[in-house]
Amino acid sequence: MAHVRNKQVILRDYVSGFPKETDMSIVESTLTLKLPEASNEVLLKNLYLSCDPYMQILMTNVEPGSVSYAHSLSQPLTGLGVAKVLESGHPDYKKGDLIWGLTKLEEYSLVPSTQIQFKIEHTDVPLSYYTGILGMPGMTAYAGFFEVGSPKKGDKVFVSAASGAVGQLVGQFAKLTGCYVVGSAGTKEKVDLLKNKLGFDEAFNYKEEPDLNATLKRYFPEGIDIYFDNVGGKTLDAVLLNMRVHGRIPVCGMISQYNLAQPEGVTNLTNLIYKRVCMQGFVVSDFYHLYPKFLEFLLPHIREGKVVYVEDIAEGLENGPAAFVGLFSGRNVGKQVLLVARE
Amino acid sequence: MAHVRNKQVILRDYVSGFPKETDMSIVESTLTLKLPEASNEVLLKNLYLSCDPYMQILMTNVEPGSVSYAHSLSQPLTGLGVAKVLESGHPDYKKGDLIWGLTKLEEYSLVPSTQIQFKIEHTDVPLSYYTGILGMPGMTAYAGFFEVGSPKKGDKVFVSAASGAVGQLVGQFAKLTGCYVVGSAGTKEKVDLLKNKLGFDEAFNYKEEPDLNATLKRYFPEGIDIYFDNVGGKTLDAVLLNMRVHGRIPVCGMISQYNLAQPEGVTNLTNLIYKRVCMQGFVVSDFYHLYPKFLEFLLPHIREGKVVYVEDIAEGLENGPAAFVGLFSGRNVGKQVLLVARE
Repeated sequence: MAHVRNKQVILRDYVSGFPKETDMSIVESTLTLKLPEASNEVLLKNLYLSCDPYMQILMTNVEPGSVSYAHSLSQPLTGLGVAKVLESGHPDYKKGDLIWGLTKLEEYSLVPSTQIQFKIEHTDVPLSYYTGILGMPGMTAYAGFFEVGSPKKGDKVFVSAASGAVGQLVGQFAKLTGCYVVGSAGTKEKVDLLKNKLGFDEAFNYKEEPDLNATLKRYFPEGIDIYFDNVGGKTLDAVLLNMRVHGRIPVCGMISQYNLAQPEGVTNLTNLIYKRVCMQGFVVSDFYHLYPKFLEFLLPHIREGKVVYVEDIAEGLENGPAAFVGLFSGRNVGKQVLLVARE
Repeated sequence: MAHVRNKQVILRDYVSGFPKETDMSIVESTLTLKLPEASNEVLLKNLYLSCDPYMQILMTNVEPGSVSYAHSLSQPLTGLGVAKVLESGHPDYKKGDLIWGLTKLEEYSLVPSTQIQFKIEHTDVPLSYYTGILGMPGMTAYAGFFEVGSPKKGDKVFVSAASGAVGQLVGQFAKLTGCYVVGSAGTKEKVDLLKNKLGFDEAFNYKEEPDLNATLKRYFPEGIDIYFDNVGGKTLDAVLLNMRVHGRIPVCGMISQYNLAQPEGVTNLTNLIYKRVCMQGFVVSDFYHLYPKFLEFLLPHIREGKVVYVEDIAEGLENGPAAFVGLFSGRNVGKQVLLVARE
């Protein structure tokens, strides 16, 4: 019976505001590579782990039971990842299967089979893609843009956090639909990516725009039909002044607010009325039944190079805390992935 | 050719914030009761005029052309009303017809026929009802609750400004649908009306609730499915903390914000995401095609006494400014109407 070292990223302290590297620590334990007797769990070797903004919420001291999968002190963080099945107590999975789903930030994880989202059937694309373009962020962009945003050819689309895991796909989906799309991001490098690699019509660095309302009026003289909101706060407030009649705002995330003890107030909501705007919050898990349809749509585009994906891959579990914390200062360029093992 | 005195409420000064009686004045002019040659306008004798919160927006110094029907200085205010046709240059209307639509705050008005919404066919109910329950506010409640709110039997419904022109109907429509409904209002008298006359399950005086979040938790231990928003601001912010998954917020008005130079910030919008809430602004004019269906639904309920309507009728055009200004301090109890002439 094999014993292995199991390096883990554990939650040292509950987070208030911005997560810091010191809120986490790296510990090593030993694991026996054997399922417990009569277990119907699955023993996983984690390959690629996903760093996603929502994880911050699970690191705060929420009421017990109010959020499933909230992190516990001194335990490894939970998160999405791509993993290989080492042993399985559940008939749907067998040794050697590749899966993606909810696992833990560690080298090996024992998880209930219900936490596994999908078996990975297509391996002619990078495995890491199942943490991003072909995983939760990809489905988020797909469901939020197509199902919640109801885009039409010619629509004017604005995306914030546009080079991120979700935003870069929203922009490309908008172009495939025949929309005009503008993205905002926080560095020159990201703005260049948006314009030169990801096919956005226009992009700007919001940190260099002192008057976001004026900026949006410049890029959208006729107003915005769809605002794909990843950030909330001041950006949302400026967008509300620039929406077109019957515009849609799929609310995917509000990363600008997660680190604030007191969120910024949004003051321009009366524009929802005059412009008949629909602001619709959504959660990707409501749309996972569309995953097969999503793969059928997206895989050919990836194979033909018509949709591309920018990843920022950190190597080694010990770099997990820094990679995760970097999301909140925008240090990552593209989808933040943590490579734990290649196979 | 008859000449008549035409008393008018004119806009003396653009409004910033709360409208004041002194922003308006009463003037008298003389009118010839004869259509101009080859005019296709309609000459109206105004009977009941409607005081509605949206009129405040048209009294501010908006950019010319940005809002149709914005009021002009020294001109009578435009507003909805019930009127009798004295002369008509348009084949759809003839002398003696009763209509409701956009007219002016004066005794007699010459208006383009396109401003008339509907001819009044049913006169077995009070004519003043066509400024309220059977007019724009009634259609607003109907469209906002049924079309935008998508209510289901058993839904938990919260209505703000609940004894107002729109709110009192939303509550009654909710009860007809088998919902649990709670209303908020600003005086004990209004709270009593809601509970004892209008059939709300519960009602409270928001001015006596120091912690609206706690209040809502008390009335909605399981959360709110539909919040019919008439007020915005702090109430909306507390509601966002108490919405149920897949809840709906039809945004009808934000009267608490209209008088503020700087609107209050709404800080709890991230709840839209986790709760998958849809906030949908709407404007009643998008739904006027449903007016015949609305009458067919509502008239029998009115005749059978199953839906009631509370009106606050001020008499005489000279009381118009006070009646209108009173909307913003909540002085009116029920729909604020201005009686100009009985026939």
